[in-house]
Amino acid sequence: MSGILYLLPCPISDSPAETVLPDGVLGIARRLRYFLAENAKSTRAYLKSIGHPTPLRELDILEIGHEPARDMIDGWLAPLLAGRDGALVSEAGCPAIADPGASIVAAAHARAVPVRPLVGPSSLLLALMASGLNGQQFRFLGYLPVAAPERARRLQAIERESRAGETQCFIETPYRSSAMFDAILAACGPATRVTVAIDLTGNAEYVQTRPVADWRSAARPPLERRPCVFLLLA
Amino acid sequence: MSGILYLLPCPISDSPAETVLPDGVLGIARRLRYFLAENAKSTRAYLKSIGHPTPLRELDILEIGHEPARDMIDGWLAPLLAGRDGALVSEAGCPAIADPGASIVAAAHARAVPVRPLVGPSSLLLALMASGLNGQQFRFLGYLPVAAPERARRLQAIERESRAGETQCFIETPYRSSAMFDAILAACGPATRVTVAIDLTGNAEYVQTRPVADWRSAARPPLERRPCVFLLLA
Repeated sequence: MSGILYLLPCPISDSPAETVLPDGVLGIARRLRYFLAENAKSTRAYLKSIGHPTPLRELDILEIGHEPARDMIDGWLAPLLAGRDGALVSEAGCPAIADPGASIVAAAHARAVPVRPLVGPSSLLLALMASGLNGQQFRFLGYLPVAAPERARRLQAIERESRAGETQCFIETPYRSSAMFDAILAACGPATRVTVAIDLTGNAEYVQTRPVADWRSAARPPLERRPCVFLLLA
Repeated sequence: MSGILYLLPCPISDSPAETVLPDGVLGIARRLRYFLAENAKSTRAYLKSIGHPTPLRELDILEIGHEPARDMIDGWLAPLLAGRDGALVSEAGCPAIADPGASIVAAAHARAVPVRPLVGPSSLLLALMASGLNGQQFRFLGYLPVAAPERARRLQAIERESRAGETQCFIETPYRSSAMFDAILAACGPATRVTVAIDLTGNAEYVQTRPVADWRSAARPPLERRPCVFLLLA
């Protein structure tokens, strides 16, 4: 009988775990001793912060990295096939969403290892909830091109697509989010609604939706060096 | 100074609230006395189940319904503008995701009412996490057409679109999910991977991903009269 592969979310801000993770989820995390971690160091800090009862050095925390190597997956899943429960943990937020780990989940399904997703914070989902834009049809695009001309063309294409009523969501790394904001205001029409979501669940949480024309004259969002989710709907 | 509009998720199964909602979120819910509810009856049952300290009859629970009337929104937001905190609550899961409520959030932004999304269960997000399909690019399509020929054409179009690597997600009502499953197996190619996710977070939770060819010979998922999330990736 195979063990269960839990998908264990973790905090996405400096807020305490109990504000963003259910008691039941923390209880499961504290009972497990086998972890497949995107980043072993951050997973150790997380397990310590939630008071895992086992000394950290006695836990098996294997680092799968940002791009899990295919030829390692069999080894990582072997303890589960032998009956041990384990968890996949990302560096921030929900495993396998805007994040590596999906290949391990796929391999678990192929080997009939039961997969149990657990509730936790997703910046994408929280941004969409808080946007006021259409949450009944939406698309998550990941990262957009970095080079300015390509980025501008892509933003215009995304704006056109959104005219069918589908909210378009994308993310940007902290050091490029300010440039992305300017690119959006330059590329999109004045009536297109744009949401900027920063530091969700954190002390400096910021979520605002405005038409492009209003953004051009509004106070600039505190984007500098902060991870950011952008949403757009023409 | 305006009050805060919290977006308060609620359980999506028969499991206890503390298994799917963080302590911090339940604490906020217990402190509020003004609720905009998709369904007032289910919100009352929810607030009772989490031990809201105020007698239910003393809470202001206003029903916004499945399609909130535009001309009511000003009245619903008036207490927030007057400084009172309140929460938008859906019938199940996260407000404004695959769900009404976005128009109220949009109106809050337009009136500079601060919006705070709270963490809770989303069947869509949990299904995507647990699917093993691409969580770095995905699209949520809502409901597909009901009539068989249109549904088949749409499924084939969705399968084609997914060839670019984007996971396609859609939902079906309990009494049609079994017919949708058959339609997918009939419309899609044998190698297309399909996830069926049922009763997420509940006692009868079921999440499986298989190629269409395998689904044709595998044990049928327990779809009858259960809400279901489908995901597809060619």
